[in-house]
Amino acid sequence: MTTFQPTERTQVKRLPKRGHYDEETVFQILDSGFVCHVGFCVEGQPFVIPTNYGRAGRLLYLHGSAASRMLKTLSAGVPVCVSVTHVDGLVLARSAFHHSNNYRSVVLFGTARAVEDPAEKMEALRIFTEHVVKGRWAEVRWPTEQEMKGTIVLALPIEEVSAKVRTGGPIDDEPDYSLPVWAGVLPLQTVAKAPEPDPARKADVPLPDYLKNYSR
Amino acid sequence: MTTFQPTERTQVKRLPKRGHYDEETVFQILDSGFVCHVGFCVEGQPFVIPTNYGRAGRLLYLHGSAASRMLKTLSAGVPVCVSVTHVDGLVLARSAFHHSNNYRSVVLFGTARAVEDPAEKMEALRIFTEHVVKGRWAEVRWPTEQEMKGTIVLALPIEEVSAKVRTGGPIDDEPDYSLPVWAGVLPLQTVAKAPEPDPARKADVPLPDYLKNYSR
Repeated sequence: MTTFQPTERTQVKRLPKRGHYDEETVFQILDSGFVCHVGFCVEGQPFVIPTNYGRAGRLLYLHGSAASRMLKTLSAGVPVCVSVTHVDGLVLARSAFHHSNNYRSVVLFGTARAVEDPAEKMEALRIFTEHVVKGRWAEVRWPTEQEMKGTIVLALPIEEVSAKVRTGGPIDDEPDYSLPVWAGVLPLQTVAKAPEPDPARKADVPLPDYLKNYSR
Repeated sequence: MTTFQPTERTQVKRLPKRGHYDEETVFQILDSGFVCHVGFCVEGQPFVIPTNYGRAGRLLYLHGSAASRMLKTLSAGVPVCVSVTHVDGLVLARSAFHHSNNYRSVVLFGTARAVEDPAEKMEALRIFTEHVVKGRWAEVRWPTEQEMKGTIVLALPIEEVSAKVRTGGPIDDEPDYSLPVWAGVLPLQTVAKAPEPDPARKADVPLPDYLKNYSR
């Protein structure tokens, strides 16, 4: 099992049993989602911005408009923290105190570099598209030179990283188990509803297979 | 309509049409979720940590163990940024470039204070519980004095805040509309699956009404 070396920042100190440092757990959590929260500091002021991401091996890609304040700030090489979180359920205990969530989260620290090489940049854009909907890239119109120029792509090494996972039912204090309070887990899941074709379409294209039964 | 005054930090500069500053939009987004991402800086290093929250009027409450690094850091009164994001759908355009998400997000800046008054603290704990599952507080065993001591509660004023919302279908470049590429929206939703009663239960308690058809 390939693992990441915990550091002062990534070592899970509270509830250490929930901490995971193996590639498989970290990658599975990253690949289950497509929106992360990116944190950075400007003169001591924190900013936390939601954005899309993609992954290729031990690289996390971020991208967006060349006009984006966040991307311009990050391309300067400031420290960044990226967090990806999935909430899998509500954990309902007999006491208010022991209520919790089942969740899977990844926290990643590092410094991003701007991807300038046109081939790597195009490949990163392919990865973004495929990360959200596998099979999509082969069908869509690819980015033009102009669109590439208007896009910043950042690559962040996945090295200083940890995952935190909670699963299972509530853990109550012993005397509380006999209380007449419903306890257990309410599982939560993100599901796709019926696809809504663009009313402005000119070509009548059938729904692609990769959108049928879409799930993450 | 009550609105928040945009500041240099909260004014949505890119795609300004997506920016919203009215209380109703901000509160609806906050009340639709229960997990936020909290950002803070320690010596220029950003941290982004997922955690639960509750809301009462123009106050956002955070809480957790008195041993939590994050809560100890925030109680010292450092600047904080809280982000809440809901992804409502994948927006699939004919070009890779115009792919997007439908989403609702709130970004809040401020400085938190530790809630010390026992009555306000207990009320905040009630708000957390009710924020996740409305109706739950009346049934559960309430926090003891010991549990209250082991919990830090922070209150963050909801003042410097903005929302960003994208809805609707893809916006393609004119020539792309005739391409034979399926385009539209794949709506995403978080749903509750069948509740899983705690196998360790000693009392057989029927499923409460507030857990039937749970949705946010």
